Amino acid sequence: MSGPAPDRPVSIGLLGCGTVGSAVVRLLRKNGAEIARQTGAELRLSRVAVARPDRARDLSFEPGVLTGDPAAVVADPAIDVVVEVVGGLEPARTLLLDAIEHGKHIVTANKQLIARHGPELFAAAARAGVDLRLEASVGAGVPVIQMLKESLAANRITEVAGILNGTTNYILTRMAEDGSEFGDALADAQRRGFAEADPTDDVEGHDAAAKLAILATIAFHTPIHADRVYREGITRVSAQDIRYADELGYVLKLLAIAREHDGRVEAHVHPAFLPRAHPLAAIRNELNAVFVRGDAAGEVMIVGRGAGGDPTASAVVADLVDVARSHRRGGHGRVGWDGLEARPLRPMEEVETPFYLLMQVTDRPGVFARIATIFGEEGVSISAISQKSRGADADIVMITHTAREGQMRRVLTRIEALDVVGTVRNVIRVVDGE
Amino acid sequence: MSGPAPDRPVSIGLLGCGTVGSAVVRLLRKNGAEIARQTGAELRLSRVAVARPDRARDLSFEPGVLTGDPAAVVADPAIDVVVEVVGGLEPARTLLLDAIEHGKHIVTANKQLIARHGPELFAAAARAGVDLRLEASVGAGVPVIQMLKESLAANRITEVAGILNGTTNYILTRMAEDGSEFGDALADAQRRGFAEADPTDDVEGHDAAAKLAILATIAFHTPIHADRVYREGITRVSAQDIRYADELGYVLKLLAIAREHDGRVEAHVHPAFLPRAHPLAAIRNELNAVFVRGDAAGEVMIVGRGAGGDPTASAVVADLVDVARSHRRGGHGRVGWDGLEARPLRPMEEVETPFYLLMQVTDRPGVFARIATIFGEEGVSISAISQKSRGADADIVMITHTAREGQMRRVLTRIEALDVVGTVRNVIRVVDGE
Repeated sequence: MSGPAPDRPVSIGLLGCGTVGSAVVRLLRKNGAEIARQTGAELRLSRVAVARPDRARDLSFEPGVLTGDPAAVVADPAIDVVVEVVGGLEPARTLLLDAIEHGKHIVTANKQLIARHGPELFAAAARAGVDLRLEASVGAGVPVIQMLKESLAANRITEVAGILNGTTNYILTRMAEDGSEFGDALADAQRRGFAEADPTDDVEGHDAAAKLAILATIAFHTPIHADRVYREGITRVSAQDIRYADELGYVLKLLAIAREHDGRVEAHVHPAFLPRAHPLAAIRNELNAVFVRGDAAGEVMIVGRGAGGDPTASAVVADLVDVARSHRRGGHGRVGWDGLEARPLRPMEEVETPFYLLMQVTDRPGVFARIATIFGEEGVSISAISQKSRGADADIVMITHTAREGQMRRVLTRIEALDVVGTVRNVIRVVDGE
Repeated sequence: MSGPAPDRPVSIGLLGCGTVGSAVVRLLRKNGAEIARQTGAELRLSRVAVARPDRARDLSFEPGVLTGDPAAVVADPAIDVVVEVVGGLEPARTLLLDAIEHGKHIVTANKQLIARHGPELFAAAARAGVDLRLEASVGAGVPVIQMLKESLAANRITEVAGILNGTTNYILTRMAEDGSEFGDALADAQRRGFAEADPTDDVEGHDAAAKLAILATIAFHTPIHADRVYREGITRVSAQDIRYADELGYVLKLLAIAREHDGRVEAHVHPAFLPRAHPLAAIRNELNAVFVRGDAAGEVMIVGRGAGGDPTASAVVADLVDVARSHRRGGHGRVGWDGLEARPLRPMEEVETPFYLLMQVTDRPGVFARIATIFGEEGVSISAISQKSRGADADIVMITHTAREGQMRRVLTRIEALDVVGTVRNVIRVVDGE
């Protein structure tokens, strides 16, 4: 038995040849023949657009392949598929729209572009009858988009929750296992190449929010823009929060959660206490993981490397194989972002979760009662409350039962106004159940 | 935006309507309209073959749908796809070959059939130009076949390791967490519906071996028959082995492992000590998990429900969607089992692994030395050796460095002949590294 014979090789134009781009080139050179043998997809890299084609580089190309003109690549009649690994919104958006106009299929790793201009790009692709594939835009070596769109196609998805950023997961793992503070763990991550010199995109949750926007769009069939995802980063998390999490049986993670609830979708990225037995609690260091709940399959979790040249190239080339198979059959199989319907997002004030609070109070009789009274009046039940130190400035740690965000915000405003409360040091959402 | 419009509904003939079959029927009824909206695949259940069509059942069907004659279903010109959830080798094999002859696409959940007659069935499908899909045959709600064949299509796979049987994982979890012996944990699993009245297929590893045969065939592109998978079950595992595993930092699991090594493939199912930090060590109760190592993606793990009507139906209907999309486009996309090449299997004697040994010895000076001498003479290095009890019958627990199976068998023959050794109670392979 052998795979179906291809009509002709599929011709690829690559935009960008940095870490991911050169990993794509190396992967095609290393495994291209075997990929063709197994899948029937013969992938030929025809042109590579880079900023400085004359610069010395590790990879060598045949004459005429490297170019400094990406616009010429997307317009080249010999190119079948454009792979975009440049990143950023512009000129990536314009280049891809031009490529689509010229009838090219698209494979992109650009999460911010898809999470912000996905509907525009997919609509253009649908009009032009070309494929637009984006596995590499979420989770690199974690093939969650294929899982959601194909393996779980029979399911109504009710929840997608994940550790979608390796940098912050590495930092939080170091803080938990070494007891270090955020700044030291960040510096360690930077030394090891897990964090950028400017870590804002990761530590403030922008990266995870863009990925969650894409996953939620696919899972719930409604367009969700990255800016509509509620977002808190990990810069306020302290070693103390993580110690208290551990004492209470939890692990602290930066969690990206999207759920459907009464026809509305909620989507939020923030630090969260996870029960130690939760499957996501065991995901350490730079690994990513996505947990999906479907009405037929139940819970499915996929774990892998969320970043890096090779894992991202693995996703890009898998998409290329898929596009090549579809292209060879004379038409697009699916745009990949079908049947979206605008739906209201659930406002964060209405999202329900238990909370952990760490606050500094004056250590004198009656403090617990005054705090507890405010919780009671706002309808928030307390699950546990304990004083962690004594003296003028004592720490109080609390875990509430499930409450609405809006209720908790009212509680916080009133508690912070109390003369016996110094500062509320942190408020962290808790994931209940397994 | 909306999905592509289908030309006409895809007509399904279902063989079998037990737990899985009725879950397929319910899932199509519950989510069929939404599946059609999202994927363009309109799936119509036309005929259902059961042993006793006149028996009272929970599901009701339109007149003419239920039949006692599966041969009529596979020959029915109005049927596009035959779904086989009967199980067993015959008549399933003959029915599917007939269906293929009649030009039907096939979706099957039958692991033993594929692991034994896969090459014959796939060759027939390739000749007839029809799809044969089998996601449900391995891991039900764990979509590992799609991951291997599509998401990881760009990778050279070097290892597939998994917990592929929920019954045994449940039993081993209970033994580890409750300290119970095998028999009690099995009885508990039977009470809860996780084990059959005759548990042989699960506890002796036959079920896991068939699934591993399928995964290894796909991962390494070489046909591997279920009977060629080396197999040991869990009936000899004692609570004591699990306690010693815990003391040494390991978790005991029934592991299915396939690896490529110097161009040859090894495939074996047996109890194994896993380091506590290994991703598979955290998989508890009836969950299944598969860990795949690819040269580009790195390690990817997928976790989910490995059995049950709904998770299996989720996989069956996902395959139906895929077949419907391919059918609508006028031809088969891929047979699913392409480019296989016969390759030699690595004999179990040459497989390398560290070992755990538990043996009963006479407690007197010189025993350690006599045992250690035999290990040394056979070239097996000892990593740790300790005496666990004193008295006439002392327990000795050993962990070796990596050794070939053949070496260890020679060691065992010589040790068992020593007058100071009572019995070697168990020998269990150890997975090293993370």
